[in-house]
Amino acid sequence: MSVLCVGTLAFDTVETPTDKRERVLGGSASYFSYAASFFTPVRVVGRVGHDWPDDFTRRLTQRGIDFQGVAKDLSHKSYFWHGRYRNDFQDRETVAIELNGFEDYKPTVPAAFSDSEIVFLAASAPHVQLQTISQCPNRKLVFADTVDMWIETTRPELLKVLSQIDGLLINDIEARQLTGEHQTVRAAKAIRRFGPDWVVLKKGENGCLAVGPDNVMISLPGYPTDSLRDPTGAGDSFAGGMIGFLCQSFCTRDSAWTPSDFHPALLHRALLHGTAVASFTLSDFSLNALETLEKADIERRVTEILAMLSGT
Amino acid sequence: MSVLCVGTLAFDTVETPTDKRERVLGGSASYFSYAASFFTPVRVVGRVGHDWPDDFTRRLTQRGIDFQGVAKDLSHKSYFWHGRYRNDFQDRETVAIELNGFEDYKPTVPAAFSDSEIVFLAASAPHVQLQTISQCPNRKLVFADTVDMWIETTRPELLKVLSQIDGLLINDIEARQLTGEHQTVRAAKAIRRFGPDWVVLKKGENGCLAVGPDNVMISLPGYPTDSLRDPTGAGDSFAGGMIGFLCQSFCTRDSAWTPSDFHPALLHRALLHGTAVASFTLSDFSLNALETLEKADIERRVTEILAMLSGT
Repeated sequence: MSVLCVGTLAFDTVETPTDKRERVLGGSASYFSYAASFFTPVRVVGRVGHDWPDDFTRRLTQRGIDFQGVAKDLSHKSYFWHGRYRNDFQDRETVAIELNGFEDYKPTVPAAFSDSEIVFLAASAPHVQLQTISQCPNRKLVFADTVDMWIETTRPELLKVLSQIDGLLINDIEARQLTGEHQTVRAAKAIRRFGPDWVVLKKGENGCLAVGPDNVMISLPGYPTDSLRDPTGAGDSFAGGMIGFLCQSFCTRDSAWTPSDFHPALLHRALLHGTAVASFTLSDFSLNALETLEKADIERRVTEILAMLSGT
Repeated sequence: MSVLCVGTLAFDTVETPTDKRERVLGGSASYFSYAASFFTPVRVVGRVGHDWPDDFTRRLTQRGIDFQGVAKDLSHKSYFWHGRYRNDFQDRETVAIELNGFEDYKPTVPAAFSDSEIVFLAASAPHVQLQTISQCPNRKLVFADTVDMWIETTRPELLKVLSQIDGLLINDIEARQLTGEHQTVRAAKAIRRFGPDWVVLKKGENGCLAVGPDNVMISLPGYPTDSLRDPTGAGDSFAGGMIGFLCQSFCTRDSAWTPSDFHPALLHRALLHGTAVASFTLSDFSLNALETLEKADIERRVTEILAMLSGT
């Protein structure tokens, strides 16, 4: 079973308190798809510009990530983000963002992708997210993410997205921005009232909190580490590990899966896999750490986290 | 086995975004000792003023908390703290603090307490903490806590405390203030270099992180709840649950315990008990929630948290 992902494919320039990388491979769809590819086939819908290097595409497609849905826009450059982490990574400032035509992008889901049942709408413009799900008639489980820019500038469209999805992954600061609630449980519950059954708050080094139907709440810590080098993409990698793991679980069943197979015990394992993958991503720039990773490394880290949680 | 605790016994006036309580029972030693009393006998060293109500003493001593070490200072009023939580509990402002003679307090550990092996130096002036441990010749395991005021005003004495203790419990904001490190693992490791083998960062709703020898790290989430009413004393209750549970574990051994019995698996259980007790404290003002609690409620919550962590 594949997961279909729509999101940005971008050049990132990243400054940290001690280091800088210019125009490296980034974007929400890149991080998500690479992370998910450890567990399941991934189909990407997105857009690149005329300056997109073949090497960036190759780094993703050689993982088996299907790029049929990626359009090349020859009249524009690629999406570009320039961020700066300051104050020992406590603050993130967007120095520059160039949509480079992304604002007019109309995603096309290829016919070969139209049977997709699990869809991830990575952080990108809500109109892109809406147009993607409308082209996935077989969707059974749709998760989305969003970031501050869309909450600020396209709130009505974003609320429409929320009314059409099963789960939202969002970082805690943006959950507060979206809801006005500061306490994480209250913020998650407030988001559920916008539509999604499941809300997963991503809290960086403080882990994650999932809130779902029947007052289900799962709070897990981050993997404790002092090897943070660049947090960019950690949240998208978390989503990739989590949703990739869900797909892997569903496709190993004997019978066809239904959305009711998405139960709290499975979500718990999925959150752990997201936590594990993200803990690698942040240890280096761009996809570098993921590109030297084996699936066994992820499973070992999940086992390590479980041992920490159970005190064994 | 008893735990000896020194700290403040105070009147608290607390304002939350929706509510206010005036001159209620508070202070670091009050919260700690009540929380610990679910697990072990507690001996308190401290000081109250002439305005201290007998009822406050009775509420603690009827739990079996030994008040022999509490001096009544007839020439001063009791310690008083007035705090205000704003911005949906995200900010805490100290409106007023009246030491009322606490600055000259010289603790006396009664002869009956001098065999104490486990000592908790709750947040109070470092000179009080230092004078207390010097009167505990049989101490085997000493934990301390501190707060922003002492980091700001008495740093040299505080560093002397750190050089003489086995473990520090401190909230994450104050750990940053003490070390200049923003990432929690780095902050905890920096504190270890000041002396204590074990550092437990208390992160409020984000749980706790313990860092110890041999790179042991235990990160646990907070108990997810939206019933926060007053966070005052939650950190001291966490310490009481954690250290009370350790004492209970040590005293149920067949042979005499040694500090090496304090190992990561035991600490893990202790942290869970601290988390559970604190989750009750914050659901009401003062000690109100603790005073209606049964030990079985705490154990049930520990079981619930463990089930959440293991996904069962």
